Amino acid sequence: MRALLLDLGGVVHVGERALPGAAEALARLRASGLPHLFLTNTTRVGASELAARLRALGLAVEAAQIFGAPAAARRLVLARGLRPHLLVHPRLRPELADLEGEPADSVLIGDAGEAFSYAALNRAYRVLAGGAPLIALARNRYFQEEDGPSLDAGPFVAALEHAAGIEAELVGKPARAFFAAAAAQLGVALSEAVMIGDDVESDVLGALAHGLQAVLVETGKHRPGDSERARAAGASVATDLAAALAALLA
Amino acid sequence: MRALLLDLGGVVHVGERALPGAAEALARLRASGLPHLFLTNTTRVGASELAARLRALGLAVEAAQIFGAPAAARRLVLARGLRPHLLVHPRLRPELADLEGEPADSVLIGDAGEAFSYAALNRAYRVLAGGAPLIALARNRYFQEEDGPSLDAGPFVAALEHAAGIEAELVGKPARAFFAAAAAQLGVALSEAVMIGDDVESDVLGALAHGLQAVLVETGKHRPGDSERARAAGASVATDLAAALAALLA
Repeated sequence: MRALLLDLGGVVHVGERALPGAAEALARLRASGLPHLFLTNTTRVGASELAARLRALGLAVEAAQIFGAPAAARRLVLARGLRPHLLVHPRLRPELADLEGEPADSVLIGDAGEAFSYAALNRAYRVLAGGAPLIALARNRYFQEEDGPSLDAGPFVAALEHAAGIEAELVGKPARAFFAAAAAQLGVALSEAVMIGDDVESDVLGALAHGLQAVLVETGKHRPGDSERARAAGASVATDLAAALAALLA
Repeated sequence: MRALLLDLGGVVHVGERALPGAAEALARLRASGLPHLFLTNTTRVGASELAARLRALGLAVEAAQIFGAPAAARRLVLARGLRPHLLVHPRLRPELADLEGEPADSVLIGDAGEAFSYAALNRAYRVLAGGAPLIALARNRYFQEEDGPSLDAGPFVAALEHAAGIEAELVGKPARAFFAAAAAQLGVALSEAVMIGDDVESDVLGALAHGLQAVLVETGKHRPGDSERARAAGASVATDLAAALAALLA
């Protein structure tokens, strides 16, 4: 292992609460000097606001260390010269608004949260019905909030795919290009990186499929059965981030 | 052919507009004495309100002739003793509200239209995440409005299925039980009934799969390619309801 990729939601925090031991674990990681990035599919906020919120919780996370799907989507959209219709969270919109154009030739969807209204979904659907491609920042099923699990971007991606009879192109985890770009930024091969996450599909099975190593933490959205799926696929399992790091840094 | 089943949206009307020739065609059908029912997956309103709206457009449709998914769902829920959480349109809710109970042991979803908010979908998701089954009034992909195609119940059913990792049980077309109950009400066998509709999947392929005959009309949501799919599967194709009835009643 020469570098570490860490998920944020469900691994270092749940909503506005730092997970027990996470602050100390991140401090220990930073002191170890091991190259690392936070690889997140969170698309309700941009990297700067997310880092600020996490630092307010006592978590040592800098915006420059966050490798997020929105920035990767910006690179993809610019590289292809697309003019997407945006179906994203109002707090993320300012970061991507300059990409939008009329008439749209594509739809870019993230976890828009409360902005997933029928009218907004229908507007996006009509662009797709005209033949435009759908680019998904993420397609996670759900994430863990303090009062229960909540719908992530994935179900809404599935809704638009079903309506238009198409398949979305995924930007974030578990897309290979996303893991590869993060590894490249750290200067390591995919096989030299370890992914730590609470999402058995996006984080763990995704990482393993592309040749990374993976550790599932039993926090956040972790549910009974996830640990068995992770172990069966060749991942390690740790009770939380502190335990995962203790094993990896030992 | 001993009986006729007719779709409504896209066949006799689009939104608040009667389709050309539909009023005369329905009058001719009534005069012919051929037993018929209107078999609809529309779930934004109940049968009484729908019939009143159509009569206001000059269309001879009685509430008692409407065989709709909401009434079928009521029979299913009562037969199984379920207490569903309702995710339905505000105008349909009064018809089903007496079925609802706390704690819910199932979710009943229809085309809720603007009531498909993130919060409402998330409430339904949390019931499903607890292991409750999902019962879908319909799962049509889209329907035709005067200004373009609009999302029907199907994409939202797909969203909740994806989120919870489950498969919905379908009440309306193309469920076999729905066609069978309508045929039984008319006193004919499935093979003696003809279905006329604009939805190649729910109306035409659905009817054929259960042994009915089927006619696709090229109105409403009809799109290029639909007619070829219908013919290849063994259905007839007619330009509109008047042409379909002219051929059937000849």
